[in-house]
Amino acid sequence: MDEVPGSLGTSAGLALRLGQTVFSSASLLYMCLDVEFYSYTAFCYLVTVMGLVIPWSITLLVVDAYSVFVKCVPRQPRMLSIILSGDMVLSYLSLAAACSTASVTDLLLDAGGGSYCTAKLCSRYQLSAAMAFLSWFFSLTSSLFNLWLLRSL
Amino acid sequence: MDEVPGSLGTSAGLALRLGQTVFSSASLLYMCLDVEFYSYTAFCYLVTVMGLVIPWSITLLVVDAYSVFVKCVPRQPRMLSIILSGDMVLSYLSLAAACSTASVTDLLLDAGGGSYCTAKLCSRYQLSAAMAFLSWFFSLTSSLFNLWLLRSL
Repeated sequence: MDEVPGSLGTSAGLALRLGQTVFSSASLLYMCLDVEFYSYTAFCYLVTVMGLVIPWSITLLVVDAYSVFVKCVPRQPRMLSIILSGDMVLSYLSLAAACSTASVTDLLLDAGGGSYCTAKLCSRYQLSAAMAFLSWFFSLTSSLFNLWLLRSL
Repeated sequence: MDEVPGSLGTSAGLALRLGQTVFSSASLLYMCLDVEFYSYTAFCYLVTVMGLVIPWSITLLVVDAYSVFVKCVPRQPRMLSIILSGDMVLSYLSLAAACSTASVTDLLLDAGGGSYCTAKLCSRYQLSAAMAFLSWFFSLTSSLFNLWLLRSL
């Protein structure tokens, strides 16, 4: 079996999962520090999606850490397919959430900042969208590496 | 070689490409019938993405129609990989565009319809977003079938 860097059970894969966890948590935190997000559907959607992405990436972070440190790599094709499809679905969802948040924030800024959101709040929304984009990027990368590994199995 | 229904060169694949072409053109038309979309970044993005999706799906529609009617199926793995990656990238882009449009339209409707967009214009934006979602769905489906075919090659 080939060793594909970045796939399940490698140290690069562990780094990808760590990035995913950190950025999705940061996105959720920036969005939830004020409770004003209830007013906008797009922000509620981002919170929901990040609430799905965080437990998923923490679980796989634990699996990867276990594989790296105990040197026991769990690589059944069926398990890999499940992880791959979960990654794909979550990366589509988090891209959708990031785009919605970014466009709504852009519109709020355009529509005369002061009346809808203060400058501080708007920049917090922007940061949250940027973190969601980074989290999407990491989850897409790890799903591509896992796809590569699945093809080589 | 297995015959995977829905993949490149089958009649189901032709139907998928046809749906993709129709829905992306409809989305572009609904958005462009008025020229007010220049005011919003999300709408400009939708127009750009649909301008990429339409030529791509028309090209593959022609390839599929040729394969179905002439019974000559062009299935080199390299060509299939290029088509698959194009489908993947365009499906991510069109999902992003659809989500941005949907969330901006939702916000415009919430922020007191009359002042930002008339009811007719807003419902046109909603239709455009719905068509973009359908086009994304078709392009995701055909990329999944092509992935299946690529695995079986």
